Amino acid sequence: MVVETLINGEDFQQFEAIFHPRSIAVVGASEDPVRPGGAFFQNLVTAGFKGGLYPVNLKGGKIGEYDVYRHLTDIPHPVDLVIVSIPRDGVLNVLEECAAKRVKGVNFFTAGFGELGDARARELEEHMLRLARRGGFRIVGPNSAGIACPSCAMPIGPEGFLGQPGDIAFLSQSGSLSLELVQAGMRRGLGFSKIVSLGNGLDLDSPDYLRYFAEDPQTRTIAMYLEGVQDGRLLLRLMKSVSRKKPVLLLKGGKGQAGLAAAQSHTAAMASSEAIWKAAARQSGALWMEGFNELVDTLVALQRLPQGRLKGIAVVSGLADGGGGTAIVTADLLAAAGLNIPQFSSATRDRLKSVLGAVGSILQNPLDISQVQGRFQSVEAALAAASGDSHIDLVLIYENLYTLSRWHSWERILDLNRMMVRVCREQKKALAVILPPEMMETRAVDLEGELSRQNVPVYPSAERATKALAQLKQYYRGT
Amino acid sequence: MVVETLINGEDFQQFEAIFHPRSIAVVGASEDPVRPGGAFFQNLVTAGFKGGLYPVNLKGGKIGEYDVYRHLTDIPHPVDLVIVSIPRDGVLNVLEECAAKRVKGVNFFTAGFGELGDARARELEEHMLRLARRGGFRIVGPNSAGIACPSCAMPIGPEGFLGQPGDIAFLSQSGSLSLELVQAGMRRGLGFSKIVSLGNGLDLDSPDYLRYFAEDPQTRTIAMYLEGVQDGRLLLRLMKSVSRKKPVLLLKGGKGQAGLAAAQSHTAAMASSEAIWKAAARQSGALWMEGFNELVDTLVALQRLPQGRLKGIAVVSGLADGGGGTAIVTADLLAAAGLNIPQFSSATRDRLKSVLGAVGSILQNPLDISQVQGRFQSVEAALAAASGDSHIDLVLIYENLYTLSRWHSWERILDLNRMMVRVCREQKKALAVILPPEMMETRAVDLEGELSRQNVPVYPSAERATKALAQLKQYYRGT
Repeated sequence: MVVETLINGEDFQQFEAIFHPRSIAVVGASEDPVRPGGAFFQNLVTAGFKGGLYPVNLKGGKIGEYDVYRHLTDIPHPVDLVIVSIPRDGVLNVLEECAAKRVKGVNFFTAGFGELGDARARELEEHMLRLARRGGFRIVGPNSAGIACPSCAMPIGPEGFLGQPGDIAFLSQSGSLSLELVQAGMRRGLGFSKIVSLGNGLDLDSPDYLRYFAEDPQTRTIAMYLEGVQDGRLLLRLMKSVSRKKPVLLLKGGKGQAGLAAAQSHTAAMASSEAIWKAAARQSGALWMEGFNELVDTLVALQRLPQGRLKGIAVVSGLADGGGGTAIVTADLLAAAGLNIPQFSSATRDRLKSVLGAVGSILQNPLDISQVQGRFQSVEAALAAASGDSHIDLVLIYENLYTLSRWHSWERILDLNRMMVRVCREQKKALAVILPPEMMETRAVDLEGELSRQNVPVYPSAERATKALAQLKQYYRGT
Repeated sequence: MVVETLINGEDFQQFEAIFHPRSIAVVGASEDPVRPGGAFFQNLVTAGFKGGLYPVNLKGGKIGEYDVYRHLTDIPHPVDLVIVSIPRDGVLNVLEECAAKRVKGVNFFTAGFGELGDARARELEEHMLRLARRGGFRIVGPNSAGIACPSCAMPIGPEGFLGQPGDIAFLSQSGSLSLELVQAGMRRGLGFSKIVSLGNGLDLDSPDYLRYFAEDPQTRTIAMYLEGVQDGRLLLRLMKSVSRKKPVLLLKGGKGQAGLAAAQSHTAAMASSEAIWKAAARQSGALWMEGFNELVDTLVALQRLPQGRLKGIAVVSGLADGGGGTAIVTADLLAAAGLNIPQFSSATRDRLKSVLGAVGSILQNPLDISQVQGRFQSVEAALAAASGDSHIDLVLIYENLYTLSRWHSWERILDLNRMMVRVCREQKKALAVILPPEMMETRAVDLEGELSRQNVPVYPSAERATKALAQLKQYYRGT
C-alpha cells in the first residue's frame, strides 16, 4: 500500500521549529505568576526548557535573573517561537516585530477575536493573517492555550503541566481538554509527543497539524478534539490517509444542540450535526469517541496492547473472594460491544477443574476463581490454564483491591500482580486489568503505576475497559 | 391510584424475623476467621450485632467468650435466623434441628447444590425444601453470600462489610456484587436497608424478596442483580406493581452468550435473552441498567436529587482555569441521552455578561466561567445567575480538582464548594457535581465525602453523571 506524503519538507521544517523551538520569547511576560504571560514564562523556566528563553514586556526590567526586553527586536539572538499574552489591541505591533525578527511561529494565548463574531474582530484577524504571510511565520491560535512538547521540556499553557514524553499527539480545539488529557496521562502513564490547543485556527487549522503529526517520527497515535473545521471534506480525506499509518481518534464537541451553540461561541468554527460527523469519520477509518474517558482509555489500549485483532478475551475475577457476578457482568459488556469471549477448550477446562474443583466455581469463560480463596499457587495455575488456551490472546483480570486487602498484605498483593504479569508473558498473551479505584484510592494509584510501568493497561471499570477494547478491535479490523 | 398489597401479614412477619432477627446461630462457626463459618461469626461480633449470637459446631468448646453448642437444639434460647456454613453432607441434619428449634429462617452459605446440575444435588435440594415446609421456616440460598441489615448491625457475608443504614434494598443473585455494592456505597455515601445474596433461590426467590421490599418501610429504592428467575412473568408483573411505589433498578447478568453459559453454572437459573428482558423490564416501569457503575450512579441520583422530572440542566465548568471543551463535551453527552440543556433567558445572559464580560467566555448553557480566573465573588455571581434561571432545575458543576488546587488552597476549595451548595439552596435548585478523581485521589475522596454529607450527588465523570440523570428522568416520567 502506497501512502502519500502529506506535508512538504519546507512546511515540515517550519512545524519542527514551532514544536521543537531552539528559543522562545514570551510577549507579556511578567513577574506575576497569576497573569497568563507570567505563568507561561515561569512554567518554561520551571520545566527546564533547554533553549533560549526571553521575556518581553514594554515595561522592561528583570524577571528573576532574566532581562526583560521591551521589544522582540531588542533580543540579540534568533527566536523560533513567540508566545503572545497581551490584550488584543497590541497584537498588530507585536506581529510587525515578529516579521522583522524572522520568527518561525507565533502562539496567541490572547482571546477576543473571531470567536466573538463581531466585524471588527474579524477584520483584525484578517490583518494578522496578512502580516503572517508577509513575514513568513505561522500563527497558532489566537485563543490558544498553548503548545506542548514534553521531550523538549515545553509544558502546556499557563497551567504548566509538562506530562511525560511519548508517542501520542493531541490536537485540541479546547484548552481545558488539552490540560485534562495531560492530567489524565500523568495518572494513567500516557506519554505525549506534542499537544496543541489550536484555538480559532486562524492560520494553522486542524488539517495542517494533522499533516505534520502524520509525518512526525515522534508520533505514533493522533488524538483530536474538534468542534468544527473550515473545510470538513479536506479533513476527512486527510483522516483517511493518516488512519492507514497511525490511529486517529476523534472526539467531536458541539454535537448536541446545546453544545453546538456553545461551540460556535467558543472558537468561531462551524459545527455540524453529530450523525454526519460520526458516519464520515468512521468511513475515513478514524475512531469515533463518545466522550473524554473513552478517548483516554482507548489511548491506553493503543499504547499498551499489541497491534493486531483481538481474537479472544479471557475474563478472570475472584482473585480472593467473590467474583461470580463481576465476571458475568464484565463478559456481558464485552460481548454486547462485539468482543469475543470464547469457550475454553476442553483441555483448559480439565486443567481448571484440577485446580479449582467443581463446587462453587464457574469452570468457563468468564472465569471466577474465588473457590481457591486466594491461594497463590492455585491462582497462578488457573491463570496459566486460562492464558494458555489457544483461543485466548488477551487476559482481562478484574481486581477488587478492597477484598484482596482483607486477604493479603500489600506486599503480597504486589507479588500477586507481578505473578499475573509473568504468567501472561510466559504464555505470550496480553494482560489488561480492571482496578476500580473506589475505596482504596492511594493503593489503587500505586498499583496502577506499578502495572503501567509493566506496560499493562489498567481501567477503572468494566464499562471503560470494554469501550477501549472495542475501539482497539475496530482499528485493527481496518488495517 | 390503588396499589395492591403484595405480601400478607404472616409472610411479612417471617421476613422481618429473617432480616431483623432477635438472635442468630452460626452453624459451622469456628475460631478460624479464614473459614467462612468463622468469618460469619466473628463479623457479627465485630459489627456489634445486638441480639443473641450462638456459635454451633459439632466440636463444641469455646470461641472467645462464647460457648459453642454442638447442636442447634442445645441452645437454651429462641433462634430466629440460622446461618449454615458446613459441607453439604451435613445440611439435612441441620435442617431437622432447625425444624425442632422452630427457627424462622436459614441462610445457606454452603454451595454445591442445583448450580452443579447433577441429579443427586437436585434431589438433596428437594429434600431440603420439604424439611423447610414441614418446619415452617424459609431458606435463603443455598450458595448465598449472606443477608445484611446495617440498622441491626448484621454485616454482609463472610467479608463482613456492614455498610451504612439507609433506604436502598439490594437483591443480588451474585455474592460478589452484593459485596461490591456495599463497598461502593461506603465511598459514595449510599445507605442500605437490606441486602440479600439470594444464591440458588431454592425456597425464597427474587419475587418473594421483591414483595417484602415493596412493603418494607425501611426501603425506598430497590436494586436487583438477577441472572435468571424461575417465573419471569410473575417477576415482571410484580416489578410493574412495585415500580409504582418505589424505583426498581434491574441489572441483568448473563446477557451475552459467554455470560449466559457462566450464569447457568453460577446459580442454576435459566437466563433469557437480553433484548426480551430489556423490553419487558422497561415496560414494567423498572429502570434497566447496562452495567454495575450505572446501578451505583443511579442509586446516588435517586437518593440525593429531588423527586420529579428534570426540566432543565445548567452545565457549569471553569471554576478556575480551563472549562470550555469540558462544558461542551458534558452538554453533548447529556443532550445525546435526551436530557434538556435549555438556553438561558436573556435576563440571565445579561447578568452573566456583567459578571464575566464578553471576551473569552461562553455566555450560554453550557457555561464556561474560566474568564473570571477563580475570583470567588464572580464565581458566586455567575452561579447565582445560572441557578436563578427559570428554565433550570439542576445545576451540574464540573470540578477539575487538579486545576483548582493550583489556584486555591485546600481550605479555599472547600469554601468554594460550600458556596456552591449555598447558592443552589438559596435558588431552590438541585446541585450535582462531576469530580474526576484522577490525580488527586485522597483530596477527591475527602471532597466527595463533604458534598455527599450535604446531599449533593457526586460523579467521577460526565459519562456517568449523564447515565444516572437519564435514568432519573426516565423514572419520574413513568410516575
